[in-house]
Amino acid sequence: METEVQNKMLSDADLIERVDANLRQFLSFGMWRSLGEAVNYAVFSGGKRIRPVLCLRTCQAVGGDIEDALDAAGAIELIHAFSLVHDDLPAMDDDDYRRGRPTLHRHTNEAMAILAGDAMTVQAFRLLAASDKHPDVSIRLVQILSGMSLEMILGQVHDTMGDLPEEMEDLERLRYIHNHKTGALIWASVEMGAVVGGATKSQRDALVEYAGRLGLMFQAVDDLLDVTQSAEKMGKATGKDAEQGKLTYPGLLGVDGTRAEIDKLLTQAMEALSGFDAKADPLRDMAKKLATREK
Amino acid sequence: METEVQNKMLSDADLIERVDANLRQFLSFGMWRSLGEAVNYAVFSGGKRIRPVLCLRTCQAVGGDIEDALDAAGAIELIHAFSLVHDDLPAMDDDDYRRGRPTLHRHTNEAMAILAGDAMTVQAFRLLAASDKHPDVSIRLVQILSGMSLEMILGQVHDTMGDLPEEMEDLERLRYIHNHKTGALIWASVEMGAVVGGATKSQRDALVEYAGRLGLMFQAVDDLLDVTQSAEKMGKATGKDAEQGKLTYPGLLGVDGTRAEIDKLLTQAMEALSGFDAKADPLRDMAKKLATREK
Repeated sequence: METEVQNKMLSDADLIERVDANLRQFLSFGMWRSLGEAVNYAVFSGGKRIRPVLCLRTCQAVGGDIEDALDAAGAIELIHAFSLVHDDLPAMDDDDYRRGRPTLHRHTNEAMAILAGDAMTVQAFRLLAASDKHPDVSIRLVQILSGMSLEMILGQVHDTMGDLPEEMEDLERLRYIHNHKTGALIWASVEMGAVVGGATKSQRDALVEYAGRLGLMFQAVDDLLDVTQSAEKMGKATGKDAEQGKLTYPGLLGVDGTRAEIDKLLTQAMEALSGFDAKADPLRDMAKKLATREK
Repeated sequence: METEVQNKMLSDADLIERVDANLRQFLSFGMWRSLGEAVNYAVFSGGKRIRPVLCLRTCQAVGGDIEDALDAAGAIELIHAFSLVHDDLPAMDDDDYRRGRPTLHRHTNEAMAILAGDAMTVQAFRLLAASDKHPDVSIRLVQILSGMSLEMILGQVHDTMGDLPEEMEDLERLRYIHNHKTGALIWASVEMGAVVGGATKSQRDALVEYAGRLGLMFQAVDDLLDVTQSAEKMGKATGKDAEQGKLTYPGLLGVDGTRAEIDKLLTQAMEALSGFDAKADPLRDMAKKLATREK
């Protein structure tokens, strides 16, 4: 009971501090010199830690203790960070800046960025398996994270190489890519938090429904920011999507249409949480915050 | 008892057939179109499957059933295959051919090779977690494979970027790199087979001792082949090590010195198996076969 009260009072900043402390300690083992430096550069880069926070808040929403979900939260962030490092590579999106700093391959070199990304992937699974206190839970987490990471990679293939069937309509194609590229890890964050927190089957169904809406919303907001914000404010190149002829929400629905889509997704995300008590409030706040991220 | 007799009679070719059938079935799920093709191109490329066979033979050596170790064997091969794909990339070893065929980035493109390698890594852990019959064993396998994959990546960093302390002597440096780059997955193959087969602590210690010698021997033979064999016979560029100024056994010990080193490692590997009965004969044969690979 005491733990629950304590958990409730924790701000997102508190959660991020705990996730980072746990990750920092974990990454100080088994790494060495330049590889360790490269991994740390990529992982501790001022990211918003949306996925780990989502994982911990979901664990709380079903009455779990966030301490039990710290490894899961860190593992998701490692997968997210690896995907950014590899996506930024010259052969992929060829980005020189991220969050206002040189991307890892610009900071070090391409070989190191490839290897550091590989190391982060492996570290994610090593972190999930680090404790054998509850092997049945741990193995379920490995199942979810590996499955969803694969979906994410598939999304990146389709986004980069346009490999979807020709007969697919643009909006369907866009949703497919977003569901995979961004949605999969959001889904994993929520499902892993639910599993660690001991969610019932019906709770888990509702939570992953929430996650699905959140994932689409997240990318719609991202697309919108790409057209409405300046590069300076974003800390990375903007307007790149249109330049590269990528499918985006604003490109298909216009700016106003995209805002309407975001509103709809927010409403659906909130509805999915209707059966939860106040312990799910941080999840509700998170959806609202993400929806209004552009302001 | 019947299973044991059956297992004993299986040739390496039989084992490889089973590993491949299991992998082929696993990889037909969750993959799609070009990403699936790329992964299959890299995984089914006529590799010798030394690691999976080693895993299954170790499982047999301690009285286990090879059926139980097929997923572990496949997972190791996926990690091995991913490492080759990424090592071949232009930013790394920049190899155009492997096993007589274009490398994956030459067959497709760089972005696809990066993503397919990522997908293989993730698939390896998905395969280990696919069954939740024995979560305690599965999570132990995830621990071993993730830990050893990290060591392998570290070895590649040191090999590619020469990041070891300057005061380290050449032979020590060479052994460090080989122990990591090649030895780690050989070690993982043996330890995972031992865990699945239910090895005792002392059996496992002896088996990983065997694996350590085998790993060093494997790379020493590889180095030797690089200087003594023609490119045609190897199906890849040879003489590259010397050209790139890499540390090699023949470079440090000469061709004869390398052969003596291989003999010594073989003897030590056989000694490590002295406490095992005839069920470990395939492991003994394997060591001998690997030692004489150059002929």
